[in-house]
Amino acid sequence: MRSDVFETETLTVPGGTETVLRGGRHLFPLLPQAFHGVRRIGVIGWGPQGRAQAKNLRDSLSGTEITVSVGLRPDSPSRADARAHGFTEESGTLGDVLAVVAESDLVVLLIADAALAAQHQEIFAALKPGATIGLSHGFLLGHLRATGGDLPAGHAVIAVCPKGMGDSVRRLYEQGATVNGAGINASIAVHADPDGHATDRALAWSVGLGSPYTFETTLESEYRSDVVGERGILLGAVHGLVEALYRWFLLDGSDPVTAYERACETVTGPIARTISRAGLRAVREGTDAELFDRAYSATYAAAREIVAEIYDEVADGTELRSVVLADARLAVRPMSRIGGSPMWAHGDEVRARRATHETPIDPLTAGMFVATMVAQVDEFADRGHAWSEIVNESIIEAVDSLLPYMHARDVAYMVDNCSRTARLGTRRWGPRFQAAYEQIALPTVGAQADDKLVAGFLSNPVHEALAAAAELRPSVDISV
Amino acid sequence: MRSDVFETETLTVPGGTETVLRGGRHLFPLLPQAFHGVRRIGVIGWGPQGRAQAKNLRDSLSGTEITVSVGLRPDSPSRADARAHGFTEESGTLGDVLAVVAESDLVVLLIADAALAAQHQEIFAALKPGATIGLSHGFLLGHLRATGGDLPAGHAVIAVCPKGMGDSVRRLYEQGATVNGAGINASIAVHADPDGHATDRALAWSVGLGSPYTFETTLESEYRSDVVGERGILLGAVHGLVEALYRWFLLDGSDPVTAYERACETVTGPIARTISRAGLRAVREGTDAELFDRAYSATYAAAREIVAEIYDEVADGTELRSVVLADARLAVRPMSRIGGSPMWAHGDEVRARRATHETPIDPLTAGMFVATMVAQVDEFADRGHAWSEIVNESIIEAVDSLLPYMHARDVAYMVDNCSRTARLGTRRWGPRFQAAYEQIALPTVGAQADDKLVAGFLSNPVHEALAAAAELRPSVDISV
Repeated sequence: MRSDVFETETLTVPGGTETVLRGGRHLFPLLPQAFHGVRRIGVIGWGPQGRAQAKNLRDSLSGTEITVSVGLRPDSPSRADARAHGFTEESGTLGDVLAVVAESDLVVLLIADAALAAQHQEIFAALKPGATIGLSHGFLLGHLRATGGDLPAGHAVIAVCPKGMGDSVRRLYEQGATVNGAGINASIAVHADPDGHATDRALAWSVGLGSPYTFETTLESEYRSDVVGERGILLGAVHGLVEALYRWFLLDGSDPVTAYERACETVTGPIARTISRAGLRAVREGTDAELFDRAYSATYAAAREIVAEIYDEVADGTELRSVVLADARLAVRPMSRIGGSPMWAHGDEVRARRATHETPIDPLTAGMFVATMVAQVDEFADRGHAWSEIVNESIIEAVDSLLPYMHARDVAYMVDNCSRTARLGTRRWGPRFQAAYEQIALPTVGAQADDKLVAGFLSNPVHEALAAAAELRPSVDISV
Repeated sequence: MRSDVFETETLTVPGGTETVLRGGRHLFPLLPQAFHGVRRIGVIGWGPQGRAQAKNLRDSLSGTEITVSVGLRPDSPSRADARAHGFTEESGTLGDVLAVVAESDLVVLLIADAALAAQHQEIFAALKPGATIGLSHGFLLGHLRATGGDLPAGHAVIAVCPKGMGDSVRRLYEQGATVNGAGINASIAVHADPDGHATDRALAWSVGLGSPYTFETTLESEYRSDVVGERGILLGAVHGLVEALYRWFLLDGSDPVTAYERACETVTGPIARTISRAGLRAVREGTDAELFDRAYSATYAAAREIVAEIYDEVADGTELRSVVLADARLAVRPMSRIGGSPMWAHGDEVRARRATHETPIDPLTAGMFVATMVAQVDEFADRGHAWSEIVNESIIEAVDSLLPYMHARDVAYMVDNCSRTARLGTRRWGPRFQAAYEQIALPTVGAQADDKLVAGFLSNPVHEALAAAAELRPSVDISV
């Protein structure tokens, strides 16, 4: 990754180095130069990412000659919200998708995966000559491979992929006004670079979003880690874990509120906070290490087996096929919701108790959660991902974006309200984790810890990688 | 389906008729004629199906000039067992795979799916000119489509697909010595028929296996219903149901043995027996119909959603890809077992109580089980399967073969010990059903029944189809 505009730095990670760019508001004056001739940025779509990115870019580019517009379908129900956030037809910053595409030098495609699959040809046909195509994850590449399509020649194709939800991308950016550098890390990928300025444009976009640091990947690698991650420790595994443990604690004699706290509140609260501030080993140090070790030992292999299966299916394209098949099926019969599970009825009570009651780290839950997180880390490392991608996609995104959001709402709310690709994946794999926890891990949690496995955890290179990445961003608790 | 040898009959099913052949030992004298020139049958493989089919065919053809040989790898650990069952090198009825293939006029391929995927080309190359290729399910066709391969030209390709486990195919055949016609129904498919005798050979094979009645399908249709069925009500859904209900009853205050009985014993025992003897509506009549109706209403849509998803994935080839991917992964890391789940520790105690204690039909469990069964039936009907295939693959195989086997062992034992394709599928989809039962069905079981849905159940055409199929076989309880 080389920039003509920004000063990159070298991040030391286990076994080598990575070139990264540290962000911050002091770099905003460099954005016009780094965007290399881009005068109009068109953000297509107004989901959580579309809204966050359009607003952050507009704010970061305020006072420059670069404008940010939003493109939506004429009948889009999001038009009113976009207007309420200051993107209007009158000012020329809100228009129909193809009109905004046609006038933009950088087209940022943030519509839903299914819509992107359906409309990308029409959008490509409307592009200005030489316009840059911007993506925020590798889904489209996977889709084009699966369907024999291709990205259009002659256009730069770049991706900037924030490692967090749209809401977090916006919220932390706002907090960045007082804590310079607060934000959500992002990876960039340069897929096609006809004029040699694609990397700088991607870096400018990432800095403009407020990324504390930006690292490099490929669309393929991003796609794999992103889709596996949300099915794994970011969302699917969390859902499976809290469902399994809630019943486990109830059967162990806990009342429902305590069971909720031990299964779920401990993960979204103190475990996430501890990892964010002090890393994975600090979780073990902050609880009953002997029980943590037993839980870790009982869980690791069962979790790894599923993560490996998910990875195979994502890399093979099977998982994407299932999303495409689901889209057709869901047109006939809508997806059922999973928020009716009994545990969620107690969420309000748990949240109400927060003022007077501090939930501790539960050692059983912690051991199982951390084992699953490390299983994903190890699988990604075995598959050759760079350390920045591994720790951002397996740990930082979880503890700095998703878990705090689940802490404010609840896990089931998140599952029922995330992107369709993520929602389908969570429903597909969450129950697999639940079954593995119930049928393999929990029944053996009474056995002695596997000393070799625990020693491997304590000396895992991930701790070094996570610490290196943590130094690149200010420590800030997201306010949800 | 037309035969030059056997007298077929017309089965009246909802909306039309099917041509079927009723079996029985009185037809065995017709077998040599129906096999049309086949003098040597080579059964390749000695899993449960291989063993059952080789023995049944040998017994049925005893006294004729048709010999049945078994082909195994030179180092196959099954050789000793084959010898113990009378297939020996000395008598020329046990040999290496390719040698047996080369000398057989009908080659019945019953090796595991993964082995068939790896070895089919070698086997095809060794075939005698004009030899008939025999399959017992459509996996190979699915695999060839997925990999761009093809079946060799110039050979008849037929399938005879018993709708039950190998052990049941043998056990009921033995019982057929006293109750003529006892056995496991089979479908046949004629995929290539160069000499015009393929249908008769398939019928002869099916009659020789002891099928009470034989119906016609295609390899494609058989493959879909077979693979969906085992992931659905035959195995995957049962596993998900008993895991969900066991915890549900425990949390409701049942002791573990009672919870096991209400969740599992009731399904594998009285519910299966009632359906086998008197059909689906008899289950409702034999229990608290009001609670049955509520459970049915709470479950049907959630189960249907998953069955539809499975069907899409199987029809698309996605499910098969996942089996192929798993084969590569499992070479490195073996599949974990799921029999450690706490409920299975109580199986012996439940079985020991049988002598003195009759488990009743539990209305909650019954409503959920029957709703899932009907969801599969309805999905198959919507996808255009013939009624014989629907009722055999969704109901008769369950109640006459698999559930009695699970009743004798337990469900988890069955999951951990079935074919790899079925085992992978159960682990993949069982947890999905469990999650749907826990998160969607059980939380709403307290609501009023959906009268329209219940009326639809009571007037479902499946009852007529099942009754018609039931008349074609003697009522006999399998002895496991």
